[in-house]
Formats: sequence, C-alpha cells, structure tokens
Amino acid sequence: MKNVFIIGCGLLGSSLVRRIKKKKVAKKIFIYEKSKSNISKIKRLKLPGTIVKSLKDGVINSDIIIFCTPMSEYKNIILKINKNLTSKHIVTDIGSSKQRSLKMIKKILKKNIFWISSHPITGSEVSGPEHGKQDLFENKWCILIKDKKTNLKHLQSLNSFWKKMGSKIVLMTSEKHDKIFSITSHLPHLIAYNLVKSAQDFEKKQKYDLIKYSAGGLRDFSRIAASNEIMWRDIFFHNKTNISKAIDLFIKNLNNFKKDIIAKNNKSILKKLSQTKQVRTKIIKLKQDIDKPDFGRN
Amino acid sequence: MKNVFIIGCGLLGSSLVRRIKKKKVAKKIFIYEKSKSNISKIKRLKLPGTIVKSLKDGVINSDIIIFCTPMSEYKNIILKINKNLTSKHIVTDIGSSKQRSLKMIKKILKKNIFWISSHPITGSEVSGPEHGKQDLFENKWCILIKDKKTNLKHLQSLNSFWKKMGSKIVLMTSEKHDKIFSITSHLPHLIAYNLVKSAQDFEKKQKYDLIKYSAGGLRDFSRIAASNEIMWRDIFFHNKTNISKAIDLFIKNLNNFKKDIIAKNNKSILKKLSQTKQVRTKIIKLKQDIDKPDFGRN
Repeated sequence: MKNVFIIGCGLLGSSLVRRIKKKKVAKKIFIYEKSKSNISKIKRLKLPGTIVKSLKDGVINSDIIIFCTPMSEYKNIILKINKNLTSKHIVTDIGSSKQRSLKMIKKILKKNIFWISSHPITGSEVSGPEHGKQDLFENKWCILIKDKKTNLKHLQSLNSFWKKMGSKIVLMTSEKHDKIFSITSHLPHLIAYNLVKSAQDFEKKQKYDLIKYSAGGLRDFSRIAASNEIMWRDIFFHNKTNISKAIDLFIKNLNNFKKDIIAKNNKSILKKLSQTKQVRTKIIKLKQDIDKPDFGRN
Repeated sequence: MKNVFIIGCGLLGSSLVRRIKKKKVAKKIFIYEKSKSNISKIKRLKLPGTIVKSLKDGVINSDIIIFCTPMSEYKNIILKINKNLTSKHIVTDIGSSKQRSLKMIKKILKKNIFWISSHPITGSEVSGPEHGKQDLFENKWCILIKDKKTNLKHLQSLNSFWKKMGSKIVLMTSEKHDKIFSITSHLPHLIAYNLVKSAQDFEKKQKYDLIKYSAGGLRDFSRIAASNEIMWRDIFFHNKTNISKAIDLFIKNLNNFKKDIIAKNNKSILKKLSQTKQVRTKIIKLKQDIDKPDFGRN
C-alpha cells in the first residue's frame, strides 16, 4: 500500500482524506494546509492523517501527491517541492482547467517527473474541510488528462486510485477538457454570478427589495454564484480563451432570443423552449441529476 | 361558505383543488379543463370537485373564479363567460405577468365586474394535475395587484382565500410587479433556456458528447429550462418590455465580466465573485431556499 500526500485540505482535499481512510486505500495520509483556520478545523474534526509543517516532509514520505489547492498556488508549491520529487512519485492535481496550468507545470517541473492531471466532476457551493464527505466522488466522472508523453504505468496507478475514490474514469486531452468544461461548468458559473450581479444592480437602481421574491427562479442561480471566489477567479483566468468564446456564443443566442420575443415569433420561441426541455430528460437519464421535481428540495 | 371555480387544472389549478378540499375552504369545487388527457388524469387521481363541461355551468354556480390557464387563453375564456359574470363574482388569475393581461382584461371584461389579479410565487419544472400538491402555496408569497379602482371588499375576500391556501400576501401595482419579476423570475428562466440552447449548439458544432458532464453546473440550469413552454412563451411575450431591458442590463454586465477576465483584473473579479455570495446568504435567511449545500440533493 502507498502513502498519500494531500496538499490543501478544503472541501475536495478533506473528502479524499475521508475516503482514503474509509476504504483503507493508503498506509499513511499526510496533509499540508496553509490556513490556520482550516488546520484547527481538521484537528477538531479529527480527520485521519498527519498534518505536516513542511511540504518536504509530505513529499519524501509519500508515493502519491495530490494538489487540492486553488490553481494559482501550484507554481509556488512546485518550486518548493521540485528538488524532493522523484520519477517514482505519482503527482496529480484536481484543478478545473488544464491547458494553461499544464503548460506552466511542464515549464517549471524538474525533468523526469510525471504529472498526470485529474479533474473529478464534483463539488459544492460550500468550501472548507468541515463540508467534505467520503462519498463526494461516488459515481462521479473523473477526467484524467492523457497526451503522447503520459507515463502509462503511472496513469494506471492513478486510474486505480480514483476508482477506489468511487469515480468513473474518462481519458481526455487537456484541449478537449477545457473546451467541454468551458460550456458545461465555467460558463454556467459565470452566468450565475452575472445574473445575481444584475439583480443586485437592478435592486440598487430601482430601490426595490427584490431578493425576497427570488423563489421565482433567481434562487437556483444564487447557489452556484456562492461558490468559492478564489477557485473561480483562477478558473476564469486559466480558461479565458474558451470562456470568451462561450460568452460570445451565449450573447449571440441571447440577442436572437430577444429579437424573437420583441417580434413575438411564436414558432421560433416554442422550438427553443421545447428543445431545451429534452436536455433535462437526458441529464436525468444519464444520472447527472436527481430525478425529482425541484431538485427534491421542497 | 363559497363555491370555487377552477379554470384550467394543471399543476397550480390541481394544487388549489387539493388545498381547498383539505382545508374545507369551499362548499363546492367546480373544475373546467380543456385537455382530455388532463381530464383522464383528474379522474384517475380522484381529485375532489365536479368537472363541468361548459364554462357557464362553473360560472353560474360559483362565487370565486380562478383562471389557472396559460395567459394566452384568458381572452377567449372571458369572451365566453362575460354574459354570465356578475359584480358579486370574485374573479382572479394566477398569471406571472400583469400589466399587459390586465390591460386586455379591462378592455373586454363586462362593466362592473371586479377582477383582482393574483400571482402565487411557486411552481415547478413539471406540469399537469398529477404533480399538484396541497402544500404548494405554503409559506410562499402571493402578490395581489391593487390599483386605485380595486374593490376593497373583494380584495379582502381574495386575501382571506390565499391565506387559507397557506400564502403570505403582498399588495403591489402591476407595474412594480412586472419590473420585479422580470429580474427575479423571467430573466433567470430566459437565461437558463439560453444557456442550455448554447450548450446544444456547441455540442452539435464540436461533435462532443457534453451533456454527460453537466454535473459541473449546467444541470442546475436544465431544471428551469424544462419548464412548460406555453406558459413561458406567454410570459416572455406579455412582459417583453421589462424583459428586454433586463436582457440589456445582463449583456452589459456580461461584457464587463468578459473584459475583466481577458485583462485578468483581479480586484474587479474578486469583488464581483464575493459580493454575489452575499445574496445566497440573504436568500437562505429569508427562507426562500433550502439551507443545505447543493439544494440538499445529494
């Protein structure tokens, strides 16, 4: 059995720690966490694993190293651990955007170190180790980034690790990954933030107290617009080219929608509104959401 | 005790029927439903009340008349029942947009008939009488439209009726109503439809199978983008001026967001992403959404 080093123990990192312990996936777990408040929480929650004070202690004692910090912290951490890394280490991260971070990693990572990037498609609007759950990855996709140079032995080990976390694995290039998630995840978050911002602007301008009427639709968007700001700033900056294109497509479609509304184009509007309905059915069939009206929340 | 006539027995209408029966609010319930498939469902579900074959039978036997059809059907129905209406009738509707429909109603409704418009802030992405629930209105806002000419006695009766449905009442002009809900409900629905449409366009163009990765955010939007297309077409057409303005504000903000992302404007982005977070906290405090991460769905 291997030793695992979790760098950054927030929602995702602490969920890994819980799962590793429950499924007895590692001999030892090492945790590095920068935030004093999170360290207190980890101790209070009695999460399994040894909190290390230096990154070096974690690296030299572990076989698998998992970056669970915001992507903007990768560079500093790599520079600190570079000299202690060996080709035997399985190094990965769980960041939501890949091309740009992998470019930076390739540039600064010591030679003959194998970094295979992971992206488990899970999360929540809440952050911090107190919200982690051992089943956070259960039946969720985990994308592993594969290119021509990927070390196949390490890839196999990582594949096996994520399966033990409960994930279903898909291999993909970083380019394809970033395109797909610009649409299924990054644009939706941006749109949610932007909608809530627009409601705030309107409220201020009109002096109407409108948040109390958010049950009509706005409340759905407010959930993902409450996601961690550092994490999402990093994603927006890292995948800016694809996100920019996604915004352009979205605005083009929105302007067409507006035209149809103003012209009362019955046929075109009904076509749009009924076609989008099919996506919900597909999402539920693919078990990507709960099969209950209103997310089963009432 | 009064007799109630429900015109249109879908999600909302059937919820009213269930609640009226449970709380013994009416002596008799009459139901008019155009769709044969819904009539079969109503019979199979053994919903309380008498299904009438003509609108006239419902009107002449009832004290309270509630329009629960899509707004585009109001006109035809009014023209059919006009001659049977009296000033004693309390007539209302539950439509989601008010100015335009009230203008039309004023124009064609027989003189000395009092119509007071209602809007219960509740609903679901599913429709049809099989999805109705007696507690659909429980602790939800119900907006009653009041202007200078509103008959205060009828208003009081309607107020009392909605309280028995479980609603919390607010009085508002139709102008204020349509502005507020263009932002808290109509724009969010339009945005959700548009996002799902954009994802479909992207999928077609790139030939990527991306709906299966919708757990990253898109799935949240797909829920309200699965709402009834006739109902939402009517809302978009009826409140088109306010919705147009809301779209313009949204696009202006989205373009600013895009600029900030391209320029990597750290300060501005972080300000946006943290301010919107506060809205979620407020929504939960106001009990407009469930106080559990991820809508409690996992």
